[in-house]
Amino acid sequence: MADLDSVLSCLDLNLDRSVERLQALLRIPSISTDPAYAEDCQRAAEWLRGDLEAIGFDARVHETTGRPMVVARREGPAGSPNVLFYGHYDVQPVDPLELWDADPFDPRVVDGPDGSRRITGRGSADDKGQLMTFIEACRAFIAETGGLPCSVTIFLEGEEESGSPSLLPFLDTHRDTLSADVALICDTSMWDKDTPAISTGLRGLVGEEVTIHAASMDLHSGYFGGAAANPITVLARIIGELHDAEGRVILPGFYDGVPELPEDVRRVWDELPFSQDAFLGQVGLSVPFGETGRSVLEQTWSRPTAEVNGIEGGYTGKGFKTVIAAEAHAKISFRLVFDQDPAAIRESFRQFVRERLPADCRAEFHEHGGSPAIQLPFDSPVLETAREALSAEWPNKAVMIGMGGSIPVVGEFKRRLGMPSLLVGFGLADDRIHSPNEKYEMRSFAKGQRSWARILAALGERGTK
Amino acid sequence: MADLDSVLSCLDLNLDRSVERLQALLRIPSISTDPAYAEDCQRAAEWLRGDLEAIGFDARVHETTGRPMVVARREGPAGSPNVLFYGHYDVQPVDPLELWDADPFDPRVVDGPDGSRRITGRGSADDKGQLMTFIEACRAFIAETGGLPCSVTIFLEGEEESGSPSLLPFLDTHRDTLSADVALICDTSMWDKDTPAISTGLRGLVGEEVTIHAASMDLHSGYFGGAAANPITVLARIIGELHDAEGRVILPGFYDGVPELPEDVRRVWDELPFSQDAFLGQVGLSVPFGETGRSVLEQTWSRPTAEVNGIEGGYTGKGFKTVIAAEAHAKISFRLVFDQDPAAIRESFRQFVRERLPADCRAEFHEHGGSPAIQLPFDSPVLETAREALSAEWPNKAVMIGMGGSIPVVGEFKRRLGMPSLLVGFGLADDRIHSPNEKYEMRSFAKGQRSWARILAALGERGTK
Repeated sequence: MADLDSVLSCLDLNLDRSVERLQALLRIPSISTDPAYAEDCQRAAEWLRGDLEAIGFDARVHETTGRPMVVARREGPAGSPNVLFYGHYDVQPVDPLELWDADPFDPRVVDGPDGSRRITGRGSADDKGQLMTFIEACRAFIAETGGLPCSVTIFLEGEEESGSPSLLPFLDTHRDTLSADVALICDTSMWDKDTPAISTGLRGLVGEEVTIHAASMDLHSGYFGGAAANPITVLARIIGELHDAEGRVILPGFYDGVPELPEDVRRVWDELPFSQDAFLGQVGLSVPFGETGRSVLEQTWSRPTAEVNGIEGGYTGKGFKTVIAAEAHAKISFRLVFDQDPAAIRESFRQFVRERLPADCRAEFHEHGGSPAIQLPFDSPVLETAREALSAEWPNKAVMIGMGGSIPVVGEFKRRLGMPSLLVGFGLADDRIHSPNEKYEMRSFAKGQRSWARILAALGERGTK
Repeated sequence: MADLDSVLSCLDLNLDRSVERLQALLRIPSISTDPAYAEDCQRAAEWLRGDLEAIGFDARVHETTGRPMVVARREGPAGSPNVLFYGHYDVQPVDPLELWDADPFDPRVVDGPDGSRRITGRGSADDKGQLMTFIEACRAFIAETGGLPCSVTIFLEGEEESGSPSLLPFLDTHRDTLSADVALICDTSMWDKDTPAISTGLRGLVGEEVTIHAASMDLHSGYFGGAAANPITVLARIIGELHDAEGRVILPGFYDGVPELPEDVRRVWDELPFSQDAFLGQVGLSVPFGETGRSVLEQTWSRPTAEVNGIEGGYTGKGFKTVIAAEAHAKISFRLVFDQDPAAIRESFRQFVRERLPADCRAEFHEHGGSPAIQLPFDSPVLETAREALSAEWPNKAVMIGMGGSIPVVGEFKRRLGMPSLLVGFGLADDRIHSPNEKYEMRSFAKGQRSWARILAALGERGTK
């Protein structure tokens, strides 16, 4: 444990410099969903390759048809476990920009309302700050001990926020490079600021964009109103019908593969110190909106959803325009749980829309990624090792939780590479990821680095089996 | 009639120069609804003042709290009728700009698909081309005969496309200047390209903008999806419920003051050479969308509507963003007929929305103008005079029709100035007003000028009583 102590101490002493490195990475606006930022994504990938080379990794940027992948490798002692670390360097768009207190790509270290230090900026929590916790842990290990306790491959993608279109072909063509005993993924949250969490369930995702077309041009609502199909109205009706009065999604077959929560899991969740009022209250809400008769944890961890993420049609500028639009668009996503089949859900949605199209209207669909949910076994040795390592670092013991978000790569690691994933992250619920004023707690960043050092040391000692 | 013949001949000889004048006016992007174009509206008003002064009108630009008004006066022979001509120099926004074949503010004279000459550009038909037909008729009268056959006040507003917020106070404070025996309004269409029309009924309009607020910030649909209220879904449900299965608007009291069409009017409309297939077919539609069991003419002339003119919420850029928006917006307009009360309709809509708001959601409303419908008497002498004058100019006799659009000023002229309006216009159904590639037929522009010369001559001869 002398090695670990000196590594932890090294991390503490070099925190300022690790913050500077993170800020350099945060300054690159690597928004993957908008082609205007393609070059910035490239720059972020190159920056990471350079940083990993500097600490002795054999690092490469791999071009794809989309944003590039970074893959870096450093061998550990002979016979040591082989781990893959996964993160993503791409970030969400920043609109509405006017709601940011500062430039989202000019990160600062500021005091939060509770006096805690925090790092601001898009990507600070999702996922640049988190992925750097692992790289900093490796840096300190190498600096203090001359090497890593495990063989480590670091795999950073740049399309996580835009459906990961290049991921599957890349996994298939780099199966040998990427296969490991276990994947370590740092893209999740703490249970609360003192309680680390390991996520054992993740919702899947189906992203769909639908465009309803009606007339061949925009129409004057005086001349044509009352006789012409209005695609916004048609789209609104379809969206309005997606849920029944109990908040259940009425797509045929939607709940196929969605079991009721096992009693033992429900018991674990019921015992978690969770305040529904606080969870909703932090964002100005008070009442669960979704399926009636379900707790918020059930709603967000073990129940599927249909959400409209964006809608647009007709005149949306200042003032008023009496137009009947030629088309209307919506971006709709489905969060999937357990064994729901993304392809079946997508097809059911498309059929649902088509069946509701009035005469003269047609629907056009555009796919924005899809991945099934994943459920990790509760009894793996890696899980137990990580739980102990995390519990040693933080005030409270680590808990095992579900997760409402989707990390498609977890399912693909399992299916394509036969590799389980350990999901450990240091974000907090109020990090405002995907929203204006995203931030990452300095404590998350510092103790996150220390947590990974502990986990790497423990895996090196005990192995993964 | 020698005077009229020479005036008509003068118009024919000077058509090219009148087109150049119209093009100069069309080059000014006088979009009233967008404050960015306020100076251009001012320029358009000044241009008109200058042109009217040049032909001997006493012309002034009157500032308002919004866009300026142009008022010009030239006396006719003692005892001649006193007419007010109304038009508007403001135009609709031009988005989506990418659907225009050419710069909307660089008007051209081009050949249409049927070989007819047309003038292109935003405002060519609505309403700059139309208002210039009247000014050109006056110019020719003055050039050929040294004066006008009637006393003429020309009143041009710059807020018609944005709810005319300054109109009512202006009418009240300029009652004496603007009152006349009859108002002549050129902002409507022909029945078809050979058949002039006089509009005797006009739908009113209520414009509303509603914003649904839910959470205090945009949320991640993974973390919060299933538990947090989605304002887009809430808005879509409300819009989806506005109509029943028969296409009737279900707002309480919506049909108060909406009688069934009188049998004699229905008979006139039934006899009009109207092809529902052609009307809908020109814009790529085939089936009437609105109230079942109503003809398209009824739907657009004598039935009220609720149309969503614009909707926006969440992420609408390229790619995908798994966000639950904090708010969603819609612009909704109601076309009113007969005795519907704009204030009552507005309040009924707001109540309808409020009643459907789930917990944690609130609605914010913004008013975008309102005016009742108007119905003109079928038996006025002015109507008969105009019908004869128009029938002399065009291949077919003039018909009296209803109109789906709203020209709020008509009702206000009646209510505030006690003045009936004669609605004569030379637009065609395919002029694409409010849409990309708006145009005005050269034949409309040329024969429109001649039509007004005939009407002015006839009014001067016979009077308005």
